[in-house]
Amino acid sequence: MRDVAIIGLGQIPVNEHWGTGLRHLAFGAAQAALQDANVGRVDALYVGNMLSGEIAGQEHLGALVADFLGMAGIEALKVEAACASGAAALRVGYMAVASGLHDLVLVEGVEKMTDTLGRETTAALAMAADAEYEVSQGVSFVALNGLLMQRYMYEYGWQRQDFANFVVTAHQNALHNPNAMFHTKVTPESYAKAAMIATPVGLLDSPPVCDGAAAVVLAPLEYARTLSPAPLRIRASAVATDALAVHDRKDPLALEATRISAARAYAQAKVKPQDLDFFELHDAFTIMSALSLEAAGFAERGQGVRLALEGEVTLQGRVPIATMGGLKARGHPVGATGMYQIVEAALQLRGLAGKNQIPNARLGMTQNIGGSGATIITHILERIS
Amino acid sequence: MRDVAIIGLGQIPVNEHWGTGLRHLAFGAAQAALQDANVGRVDALYVGNMLSGEIAGQEHLGALVADFLGMAGIEALKVEAACASGAAALRVGYMAVASGLHDLVLVEGVEKMTDTLGRETTAALAMAADAEYEVSQGVSFVALNGLLMQRYMYEYGWQRQDFANFVVTAHQNALHNPNAMFHTKVTPESYAKAAMIATPVGLLDSPPVCDGAAAVVLAPLEYARTLSPAPLRIRASAVATDALAVHDRKDPLALEATRISAARAYAQAKVKPQDLDFFELHDAFTIMSALSLEAAGFAERGQGVRLALEGEVTLQGRVPIATMGGLKARGHPVGATGMYQIVEAALQLRGLAGKNQIPNARLGMTQNIGGSGATIITHILERIS
Repeated sequence: MRDVAIIGLGQIPVNEHWGTGLRHLAFGAAQAALQDANVGRVDALYVGNMLSGEIAGQEHLGALVADFLGMAGIEALKVEAACASGAAALRVGYMAVASGLHDLVLVEGVEKMTDTLGRETTAALAMAADAEYEVSQGVSFVALNGLLMQRYMYEYGWQRQDFANFVVTAHQNALHNPNAMFHTKVTPESYAKAAMIATPVGLLDSPPVCDGAAAVVLAPLEYARTLSPAPLRIRASAVATDALAVHDRKDPLALEATRISAARAYAQAKVKPQDLDFFELHDAFTIMSALSLEAAGFAERGQGVRLALEGEVTLQGRVPIATMGGLKARGHPVGATGMYQIVEAALQLRGLAGKNQIPNARLGMTQNIGGSGATIITHILERIS
Repeated sequence: MRDVAIIGLGQIPVNEHWGTGLRHLAFGAAQAALQDANVGRVDALYVGNMLSGEIAGQEHLGALVADFLGMAGIEALKVEAACASGAAALRVGYMAVASGLHDLVLVEGVEKMTDTLGRETTAALAMAADAEYEVSQGVSFVALNGLLMQRYMYEYGWQRQDFANFVVTAHQNALHNPNAMFHTKVTPESYAKAAMIATPVGLLDSPPVCDGAAAVVLAPLEYARTLSPAPLRIRASAVATDALAVHDRKDPLALEATRISAARAYAQAKVKPQDLDFFELHDAFTIMSALSLEAAGFAERGQGVRLALEGEVTLQGRVPIATMGGLKARGHPVGATGMYQIVEAALQLRGLAGKNQIPNARLGMTQNIGGSGATIITHILERIS
């Protein structure tokens, strides 16, 4: 199996792109990645997307984007794993290069959530949950996270306000990310006053509906060294799943698939959590941040929220998360999010994160979650130059 | 790169399964494939599906099916390429095994087209075409094929009735396939009298709306020899794309991506068209059969239909197609079709095709098409025992 490297990055600003269609969003990020990699054409394209069928009445994004990039003829497929679709596409791109089947591969995550032609966006997002046993009961995705957060507070004695720093940190970091959706500070006071959506999940516990696209170019490591002055090695790529329905899990607060996915990634990369310089986790909801920190080995059960409370998740902390704003403040264009995480991790490792730079970052982990913990895709990236 | 083999097959009958949900369809075929392979658990699952979001309000099929099979924890992803989603999942499974990342992989295609909760099925199917430039004009998938067939007849001087044998042959072969949807003979006379849908495409030129699931278990070839008395080698796996919109192609009758995909497969397998014992092509419409035979090298431009007219596509002919009924008569549950093709080809190569057996079949090709020729996925399978 060949080692795989990232040689180019591209992203467009996350926003409500009312005037821009799906293929144009995809084009922007892909062109940026190709230019950054200084390659004109690739052998294959894997597109991560969750909602284009529902929202735009358009499936078949592999061929659509390949053609719009002027690359008709190449291999192109779409990969889907709900909100983890972006990292799922990277997983397939990784396999394509690792196997030796392709040398230059473009991986893109793209999502247009505004301007729906089908189900209303919140209803469309619920397709990540179990349609027959959860959604049929009227539960939305926000409500599922509300139930988890409620249970967590009950089990471990936390208050809602204890989660505030997850949001304060994300918005702080987004201030210096030109591609983030929000450039507004959040204080513990504004967090406390945020409107409730699904108690205890408030408006500031959850991410915005938005559009975006992010992409990378992959190449086998040895070839990558000849193409790029600073290729990044993918040290680990791991996928694990759990029951789709929260009530089907033995312990809803355990995020078992997160534990397995992280363990597989640590084993493949031969590293421990404490070796990582940062952790781009899937902060779709503050409760997901707490549970992810626990399941990935950064905190004991029930103590993930303490890392926020004690300031350990900031850029200066023990476990920097959401270093460019995270899902909360950079935004969460669902099928694109996993690739934004990868692009942002790569910027940190290249030393290009500007005011958010983690000094001398060499090793970073990203984790993209589909559903309320049903698909977990973990990647570990390494600076090798 | 490791050689990849098929060690287990499973399918359920194609039909209108009104009383059976998506996950149960998937379960049936997957269990059959696991039992056939005599393995209890796999390392990864790749699910091909096009319409579950639209039809069932359910995305995230990787985790859903993995969990319903009792395999929560494993890697599981969904792959989509419109009507080529089934073969697209096999492509990803092939990469997972070839790369060395996984040893036992389940690949499944599943589609439930009846009982829609979203767009009406014909409208949902149109998501394979270009939503902004084709579908927005009101064109359906059948209409696109009607335009292609009309143009073909005009360019090359064929009559509608010259296509009859594609349908007669498919229905003849389906008679002895217990998993086929139709067990009714079609004669040239009944073909002539079929109701028009989108002139010149009649009811009998097009496949039924139906439900189905088909699956295989993959393993690296050397390991497969220890698990199975008759593993089948995947000699080639190739994907090529073209513009999604028919009007964006230089020559709409050329099926350029079919030519490229087949050429890549022939090169990988080091074979020529005439080395193949049969060709499970994507006979979604009779015009697609004619164009596929041409683009894959079995006939000159404009002469594909002659192979049907002269009886060369029957089981006894020079290029047997649709050997178990094809999309027309076995049925075309879109995201499952590519995997039905693989399972049927494997039955031929194992000598288990019953009354439809092609004597001493050693080498077979399958070709799954997404859209009206935008994604073409070709596999060549070989009997090695």
